Amino acid sequence: MLKHSPDIDFPEWYQEVLKKAELADNAPVKGAIFIRPYAYAIWELMQAEMDRRIKAAGAENAYFPLFIPLSYFEKEKEHVEGFSPELAIVTHAGGSELPEPLAVRPTSETVIGAFMSKWISSHRDLPLLLNQWANVVRWEKRPRAFLRTTEFLWQEGHTAHVSEGDAAQYARMILDDVYSDFMYRVLAIPTIKGQKPPSERFAGATNTMTCEGMMGDGKALQLATSHELGQNFARSFDIQFANAAGAREIAWTTSWGSSTRMMGGLFMTHGDEHGLRLPPSVAPYQVVIVQINDDPEQERLANQLRGSLVELGIRVRVDRDTSRGLGARVTDWEIKGVPLRVDLGAREASEGVLTVLRRDTMQKSKVRLDEFVPAVPALLARIQEDMLASAITRRDQRIGEASSVADAVELAQTGFVRMPWAILRDGGEEQLKPAALSVRCLVTQNGEVPLRDDVDDAIAIVARAY
Amino acid sequence: MLKHSPDIDFPEWYQEVLKKAELADNAPVKGAIFIRPYAYAIWELMQAEMDRRIKAAGAENAYFPLFIPLSYFEKEKEHVEGFSPELAIVTHAGGSELPEPLAVRPTSETVIGAFMSKWISSHRDLPLLLNQWANVVRWEKRPRAFLRTTEFLWQEGHTAHVSEGDAAQYARMILDDVYSDFMYRVLAIPTIKGQKPPSERFAGATNTMTCEGMMGDGKALQLATSHELGQNFARSFDIQFANAAGAREIAWTTSWGSSTRMMGGLFMTHGDEHGLRLPPSVAPYQVVIVQINDDPEQERLANQLRGSLVELGIRVRVDRDTSRGLGARVTDWEIKGVPLRVDLGAREASEGVLTVLRRDTMQKSKVRLDEFVPAVPALLARIQEDMLASAITRRDQRIGEASSVADAVELAQTGFVRMPWAILRDGGEEQLKPAALSVRCLVTQNGEVPLRDDVDDAIAIVARAY
Repeated sequence: MLKHSPDIDFPEWYQEVLKKAELADNAPVKGAIFIRPYAYAIWELMQAEMDRRIKAAGAENAYFPLFIPLSYFEKEKEHVEGFSPELAIVTHAGGSELPEPLAVRPTSETVIGAFMSKWISSHRDLPLLLNQWANVVRWEKRPRAFLRTTEFLWQEGHTAHVSEGDAAQYARMILDDVYSDFMYRVLAIPTIKGQKPPSERFAGATNTMTCEGMMGDGKALQLATSHELGQNFARSFDIQFANAAGAREIAWTTSWGSSTRMMGGLFMTHGDEHGLRLPPSVAPYQVVIVQINDDPEQERLANQLRGSLVELGIRVRVDRDTSRGLGARVTDWEIKGVPLRVDLGAREASEGVLTVLRRDTMQKSKVRLDEFVPAVPALLARIQEDMLASAITRRDQRIGEASSVADAVELAQTGFVRMPWAILRDGGEEQLKPAALSVRCLVTQNGEVPLRDDVDDAIAIVARAY
Repeated sequence: MLKHSPDIDFPEWYQEVLKKAELADNAPVKGAIFIRPYAYAIWELMQAEMDRRIKAAGAENAYFPLFIPLSYFEKEKEHVEGFSPELAIVTHAGGSELPEPLAVRPTSETVIGAFMSKWISSHRDLPLLLNQWANVVRWEKRPRAFLRTTEFLWQEGHTAHVSEGDAAQYARMILDDVYSDFMYRVLAIPTIKGQKPPSERFAGATNTMTCEGMMGDGKALQLATSHELGQNFARSFDIQFANAAGAREIAWTTSWGSSTRMMGGLFMTHGDEHGLRLPPSVAPYQVVIVQINDDPEQERLANQLRGSLVELGIRVRVDRDTSRGLGARVTDWEIKGVPLRVDLGAREASEGVLTVLRRDTMQKSKVRLDEFVPAVPALLARIQEDMLASAITRRDQRIGEASSVADAVELAQTGFVRMPWAILRDGGEEQLKPAALSVRCLVTQNGEVPLRDDVDDAIAIVARAY
């Protein structure tokens, strides 16, 4: 059991989990973190599955430079206004002052725009579908590990298309198939997909779509965004192509990103008073076998179980650090959120019956030794499903309906609020600010993502947010 | 056929290959490059296999911050002297001047040292084995794509041990099992492993070991290094542990790195007058099927072949861009170095006999359609073997023996030179400089990597180098 409960003091609970589950540590530079091996292993699992989906969407990975001349930002007016306050600037290098200061990339639209302009000449070069996995830097005034850090790891997709329709369709497909479906099926996070109101759009976008997750304290976390950039960047960076008739046209571009912030979302969606709860699909160890005594028979059995599980493609860890007390070991694995724990001591070895703990429910059950291994795959699948179902229930219980700003302010103390966008559109958004609320996204009456200009009767999802 | 031959004008040949094989493009910032999708796909294959080996060596991946306070560098005297001329410095961020300038990491020994000092307290915490995949920045006066760029991608391993012997053994194991064996088996590059002379050691190391590859022009390329750092960094960053008896001791650390430079080594080891030659193990497409005409029967056959090869785990690309001339298409795949090419036209479809080209030898052969797919795995394995064998032959033919500096200068015009280290140790190294030669590494009489202090009768490998 942790010292802090997520129901009572969520921020302190989060700090305690970061430390005790060995996820992150503060770096010497304010707002930057060291991602510790256990968290990085989660990130690698997430990254592998995301990368598979990005490639299935036809995008190719590439690598673009970290440093971007400041003048590149100035080419797109809204972009430079949006990002200027967050830039880190390199002024000296190689022992002397640089002729032009360089920005450390906060995102790569500008430099990729310049490359696209070189590589696109004909409609046959389109669509051009690129993605990169990289670090980016945005100076943060109020950093918080994984949610908002000065430096973070992410993927950023950048595509160019022959028409507005193609670009819109691609941006939407990424939102659906790469982001929202990944979070739902893999992270067991049921996000709400929608369109950002104009005030919350990415700097330079004509449409920003988002997946918003509800955290354990009822606050919203923006987990990934997909943008239509119209012809804004294409015009600034001269991304032109010859159409089938040979005439020059300006391309339509998109960009889309998701980051290590998703790890914060994962921890804050599923964590409880015992620590992390990891869905099996992204758990570095899906099963931990705790060998209770320093005993050759227990060791033999633990190794045998481990071998059989590994053969089934299951990620297993054997904890045989019997020099530590059993209580502390067991608590540590609970804090780390390992989905299944098996305690293996003298009685288990002699009686041939294992005690198995499901971390998501904390339920213990007895399983015969010879029945355990074949049961694990279905059990892990069940945990994954149940975690999603319970996240959906928690979310839905905490969504209220409001028909005025005053009602919204009250309801949003514990969760999300649905209310007509018409109430907020003309000045109402401003009234949310003193209560630290914002419109997280707009959805249609049926809960779909609205088309860009079709938001008159949309529902606004209002919440406190990270 | 390329315009430039590697035998006549190697640097121009390299530039031509970079462009025509779509590997890299220059970034707006001098010395930085854009790694294009085809090269990045090669990097992903290399990275996956390296990562597997690093994990097999027991190291865990983590992520450390990009920005390092300048004061951290100053803690280790040799380290700061070595790296100061290459640092990029951030002086402003978030709209104001920083209280302390930040270096963009050129390597992470210092910041990881600071973390290790926090995380290590007992001998039970050792060895601590960490690795990170990241970008680093070293300002370059004479950049060249993949070989020497201002920013590059790499992995850097950092470990701490209880004793000098453990640290030395681990650093050597990384050199052997992760680096040299990977290059030999996977990249088909037969490197020469050895110890760097003191003048060429990493800044702050007590011993640097290296893998040196011979490029197509006979120059050496340092492909990976593994360092013993003694207690230098541990002392500067206070990495201490309580030994079994409870007394405080200072840890012994290592670091080791390899980078996107290995791609340059791959291209420059195997490339020929037709372009790249890729070993099958790192070829993004191991087989390309060139569909000659826009014809449904050819398309059906191409898809069928593709499907059968994919089932065998082979990476296949079908080129059905029949709007381009066949000659240009075929030349492009030769430049891109795809190991096997199959031309599929009307005659092949009707006669049921395929024309298969081996890129490494440029030999064509006829293969019956129904015999082709089952033959591919063995054929790819054969290409991999033959490419290694021919690289070994080329290397060995270009290693000469010298017994004086004057002889070495002459022999090194075309390849490597072996000569007694005793001749160079006391002032001889200086005499190599005017001829742009250096001691690449020291090996024992038997060609092994010498122990650190056992180099009296070592052989020096002397060469021009990138």
